[in-house]
Amino acid sequence: MGKAHAVAMAAVASVFDTALRPSLEMICTTTPEGAADKARQFGFVRSTTDWRVLVTDPKVDAVVIASPQHTHKDIALAAFAAGKHVFCEKPLGLGPAESREMLEAARRSGLVHMTGFNYIRTPASQLARQIIANGEIGTVTWFRGEHTEDFCADPAEPASWRTRGRPNGNMGDLSPHIINAALALVGPIASLCADIETVHRARPSPSGPETVTNDDQAQIMCRFAGGAMGHLFISRVATGRKMGYAYEIFGTTGAIRFDQEDQNALWLYKAEGHAGRRGFTKILTGPEHPDYQAFCLGPGHGTGYQDQIIIEARDFLAAIADGKPRWPSFEDGHMVNRLIEAAWASQARRGWVDVASIEGE
Amino acid sequence: MGKAHAVAMAAVASVFDTALRPSLEMICTTTPEGAADKARQFGFVRSTTDWRVLVTDPKVDAVVIASPQHTHKDIALAAFAAGKHVFCEKPLGLGPAESREMLEAARRSGLVHMTGFNYIRTPASQLARQIIANGEIGTVTWFRGEHTEDFCADPAEPASWRTRGRPNGNMGDLSPHIINAALALVGPIASLCADIETVHRARPSPSGPETVTNDDQAQIMCRFAGGAMGHLFISRVATGRKMGYAYEIFGTTGAIRFDQEDQNALWLYKAEGHAGRRGFTKILTGPEHPDYQAFCLGPGHGTGYQDQIIIEARDFLAAIADGKPRWPSFEDGHMVNRLIEAAWASQARRGWVDVASIEGE
Amino acid sequence: MGKAHAVAMAAVASVFDTALRPSLEMICTTTPEGAADKARQFGFVRSTTDWRVLVTDPKVDAVVIASPQHTHKDIALAAFAAGKHVFCEKPLGLGPAESREMLEAARRSGLVHMTGFNYIRTPASQLARQIIANGEIGTVTWFRGEHTEDFCADPAEPASWRTRGRPNGNMGDLSPHIINAALALVGPIASLCADIETVHRARPSPSGPETVTNDDQAQIMCRFAGGAMGHLFISRVATGRKMGYAYEIFGTTGAIRFDQEDQNALWLYKAEGHAGRRGFTKILTGPEHPDYQAFCLGPGHGTGYQDQIIIEARDFLAAIADGKPRWPSFEDGHMVNRLIEAAWASQARRGWVDVASIEGE
Amino acid sequence: MGKAHAVAMAAVASVFDTALRPSLEMICTTTPEGAADKARQFGFVRSTTDWRVLVTDPKVDAVVIASPQHTHKDIALAAFAAGKHVFCEKPLGLGPAESREMLEAARRSGLVHMTGFNYIRTPASQLARQIIANGEIGTVTWFRGEHTEDFCADPAEPASWRTRGRPNGNMGDLSPHIINAALALVGPIASLCADIETVHRARPSPSGPETVTNDDQAQIMCRFAGGAMGHLFISRVATGRKMGYAYEIFGTTGAIRFDQEDQNALWLYKAEGHAGRRGFTKILTGPEHPDYQAFCLGPGHGTGYQDQIIIEARDFLAAIADGKPRWPSFEDGHMVNRLIEAAWASQARRGWVDVASIEGE
Repeated sequence: MGKAHAVAMAAVASVFDTALRPSLEMICTTTPEGAADKARQFGFVRSTTDWRVLVTDPKVDAVVIASPQHTHKDIALAAFAAGKHVFCEKPLGLGPAESREMLEAARRSGLVHMTGFNYIRTPASQLARQIIANGEIGTVTWFRGEHTEDFCADPAEPASWRTRGRPNGNMGDLSPHIINAALALVGPIASLCADIETVHRARPSPSGPETVTNDDQAQIMCRFAGGAMGHLFISRVATGRKMGYAYEIFGTTGAIRFDQEDQNALWLYKAEGHAGRRGFTKILTGPEHPDYQAFCLGPGHGTGYQDQIIIEARDFLAAIADGKPRWPSFEDGHMVNRLIEAAWASQARRGWVDVASIEGE
Repeated sequence: MGKAHAVAMAAVASVFDTALRPSLEMICTTTPEGAADKARQFGFVRSTTDWRVLVTDPKVDAVVIASPQHTHKDIALAAFAAGKHVFCEKPLGLGPAESREMLEAARRSGLVHMTGFNYIRTPASQLARQIIANGEIGTVTWFRGEHTEDFCADPAEPASWRTRGRPNGNMGDLSPHIINAALALVGPIASLCADIETVHRARPSPSGPETVTNDDQAQIMCRFAGGAMGHLFISRVATGRKMGYAYEIFGTTGAIRFDQEDQNALWLYKAEGHAGRRGFTKILTGPEHPDYQAFCLGPGHGTGYQDQIIIEARDFLAAIADGKPRWPSFEDGHMVNRLIEAAWASQARRGWVDVASIEGE
Repeated sequence: MGKAHAVAMAAVASVFDTALRPSLEMICTTTPEGAADKARQFGFVRSTTDWRVLVTDPKVDAVVIASPQHTHKDIALAAFAAGKHVFCEKPLGLGPAESREMLEAARRSGLVHMTGFNYIRTPASQLARQIIANGEIGTVTWFRGEHTEDFCADPAEPASWRTRGRPNGNMGDLSPHIINAALALVGPIASLCADIETVHRARPSPSGPETVTNDDQAQIMCRFAGGAMGHLFISRVATGRKMGYAYEIFGTTGAIRFDQEDQNALWLYKAEGHAGRRGFTKILTGPEHPDYQAFCLGPGHGTGYQDQIIIEARDFLAAIADGKPRWPSFEDGHMVNRLIEAAWASQARRGWVDVASIEGE
Repeated sequence: MGKAHAVAMAAVASVFDTALRPSLEMICTTTPEGAADKARQFGFVRSTTDWRVLVTDPKVDAVVIASPQHTHKDIALAAFAAGKHVFCEKPLGLGPAESREMLEAARRSGLVHMTGFNYIRTPASQLARQIIANGEIGTVTWFRGEHTEDFCADPAEPASWRTRGRPNGNMGDLSPHIINAALALVGPIASLCADIETVHRARPSPSGPETVTNDDQAQIMCRFAGGAMGHLFISRVATGRKMGYAYEIFGTTGAIRFDQEDQNALWLYKAEGHAGRRGFTKILTGPEHPDYQAFCLGPGHGTGYQDQIIIEARDFLAAIADGKPRWPSFEDGHMVNRLIEAAWASQARRGWVDVASIEGE
């Protein structure tokens, strides 16, 4: 993720003609050689291996945190303390306790804060949000979302940091994006009932089979505050799925389908007009849609993964410029963490959980 | 459904060169004129409005029941008592109590019995069963199935028999097909947790708003006896979906996707060979696949809805000819009813239910 | 094809409640045993190996010709002479000289005549015709059609009757369907320029390589009388294509796409409404579309190959019942033959050919 | 296009860790204010309205030409004369006479030259080239390519520079990309036969209908030197098509399909293995494929339009760094111009043209 943000900062001002033009002042990685090399490649002025040096440097105005989850809280708190704006990758720390602390620090600081839910920033997903907000599909009655990949599908895949510890598991790593999408598209989730599973319970390691200590796949039934029924499926063992960030939404007068594997198309059904001419319409993203035109004047030419990060960077710069928060903030990152916690609570009790009962403010 | 079976019986011997050639002896409908007219159209020798006349007629050897659910049990029991073979449309009576009675009568009679789960009979779904049974996708880890249509999506759709009484609701009417598919493809379901909902709680009627007394949509999380995690979604308010009998199955070495709206294609992913050449393959049904060749010698030419019923008829005739049961029998119809009952039990208690605890034998 | 027509005649009256109910009187094949066996399977009263016996039998009212092309003319002429209505499979005889003779005999006889262009009879292709005829896509500016299969793609495929003689080649065998589609959808073709090729010039045979004496693939640029530009591609060596009867049509206000490999969908684009909501709509065939409802009341349930033949049979019976011709008649079959001849003439002169200059009336 | 190249130069070193890091020295546009503003947005040090100032500036090492076609030749020749490397957008000048002059100047200079055929640079199209070059689909027998858009489909679209003069027409503007693709994927084209048309012959203008003086759509039948048959369709009136850069290639043992509107997928058919498991496989681009990994480590995450330009920039920098040419050079740009000229010659004579007869070297 570090590289994606570095590229985004190099390109964002040219793409969007932003009020602020980022200056890449300092990069922090784990070894001096690596840091220096990355600084050279990505065009940073300086490099360090000590994030405290970076977040307190007087020439640094804002910090992008793309380090492992367990480091998020300390870095963010130190950055706010030093008066720096903070963009933090999802998930926001190790759980809702940490993210609440981060959110409170952000609020106290008066500084800008954002969480890196990048997939929802594609033109197609932004269009989906607009369509729903406009009421074009009526009242949402059903939401099905998934984030499915297959990088752990092969049981012969060896044990690694990925298979150790809840935060690195499927729920910790993959679920935030699609939970965020559910909230962004349909609104708050009131209650949920989860089933979470470790499919491959041991993995090969040099010293023999090693027990896997986190989950491989999970499903969550939910009810939204607005009344819609919902379902989320999150899996790192979904054989054949590469970037299965996908959703399907039924409303009283229309429906939407999206799959990130074909990220430049949004499928829309409208229950209107001649019954014999209805069907799902494959809308290709184009200049009429949010944030597309900066990348290309022609419709159907397509944006890609890197462009999502550039859109994030544009909003982070705009927030810094005018001091007004941009979505998704640490509030959104914290809410996602509360929902993950609620899913684990549901798994523990094998039943439904009211989200309000989980670590609120 | 009556027409579909009549057409199937007219065509089946020509399509499959069956050992037995059906003779359409008598048809039963509600009015004498209607019965006579249908007899003429479909080529039946005689007609009646009294099903007891039909099931006891000495020239009748076998009965196809395509009448409303609440009549299934009495007709089937009388038919077995009269020594007739019975094909009964799904669902098998009003619930597991009735279907157990029907199954027991069938067993005592020694006659042939089948349940009409026609969608699983397409060449593509038969191919899916073969692929899984062959182990071509390894051990199944996830099954997602849905049966979604939108005939009740519009809240202005008036109240009718469809919106009155649990058996006519979404679970009673649409769920049997996809529950049967789950069992056929992945095996027995051990436990489940359901959420069932009436989305539009009142419908217009001439005398003002009428309370809807059955469900519009439902979702079911489940665990299969073989260990796979599963999810079923059943909806009659799925705006835009016309024949959304669809499933997605992940295994340890492959995956399958199918959607009845494109019933002549099965999508298969195999985690083998060059990583850079993998992807879902769209297999068009053809002569290499089950029951295709009788309809057409060329691949990709396609079968349709009516052909599924012809395949059922072929099996029913074959069962009668050799006295050996053909899948799906009343046992399968009864098991589906037990699972529907388990879903309602789960809905009542808002939690997981062991299927074994629900009305067994 | 003989089987498909036999099944269609067995089912058509039940499907469509036709005014006339066909009685399967006599079948003709090449051996007495085969004929008797087919009569038994398909429910014919009698069988013969002499088509003259069949076409002159007093109990026979109408004849379906599904024999090899070189026999079409003699059978049709004899049938008309004997006062029988005639349905003849495409192509109508060996070329335009024969089809003109057949057409003239048909006209003189006053009897009913039809040509078997079955693919254009699907609900989706009928819908495409309606949409164009309604002006829903404006003036057609471009038509691209193809009929592609791959049964000869493998150069190791041995020599056979298929690889001997122009009428059995790719142009003779596959082109009539898509030429007919072009005419049906866009209207008369005024001029064309073709490139025709034998890709695999020799094929294995028991006695060594055998020279292939007909074509494997062909393309035709054309101009329609209405002004549209067009292109046809016909191939039996199109690796991967199974039933590639497909077309794409651009008009001034809309566009259509169809592929027989997904025969229950028609893709429609309308250049109207909000620019940001436009795209190709996947319309699933349903009861609103031509000839669908007789097969199924529910949309998206799908028709198949056999159903196309049943639709043909319905029209042939209706034509016999009221003595009024039904499309496509021998006129249409003859026009297709003229266009095939024009393509060969273009190939010979390596340039454009006016269709009017080819064997007209 | 200027913006796309400016963004690419800002991002390329970060994305690819190039040996050379571009310094954006000077930008040239038509007005001083515009030039200054673009310099600010894109991060150029200086700006000018006189391209001669730019191409002769001592701090400028290399020039990217993204100005109108009629200016290409003079700028390129001046740049080579001043010792600058040149990247020039397609098409290379106004026709083969100009492009030959540009090519000869490039050769004499010993400097680096590239032509901007960006679409062929996507990971998917590069993969297609690899697959064909590897022989994975056998000998190519058929190529169908198209470049279709609909920006002129509406006859009410007013006259503009786009509708004036052959170079700004459909053949001049859109055909180079797909002609280049044909050459890149299948090899040299030996002969062709074209049909070129102005669909809407007059367009509204403030002073009344204005005659359109260039073409709207064109089709080209061709034969490749390697023997394959081919077809190209180019249209700016293809209603519904937004970025219809698409191709379909049949070989003796496999087939490929691609459509830029879903640019992260390549469809591959292999005629091998179990006949009942064959079909087109949808391969999502990923780290195994050319130039993908620099944009994202995860498969299926997708690249976009801007990324194609970054890939071009990477190659231009690499060529400058080592002085070795990179494909596609001015030779390729010149060959495309010769083929466009051949198409016009064919249109003039209404017949086939040997490409060798058109302005060679």
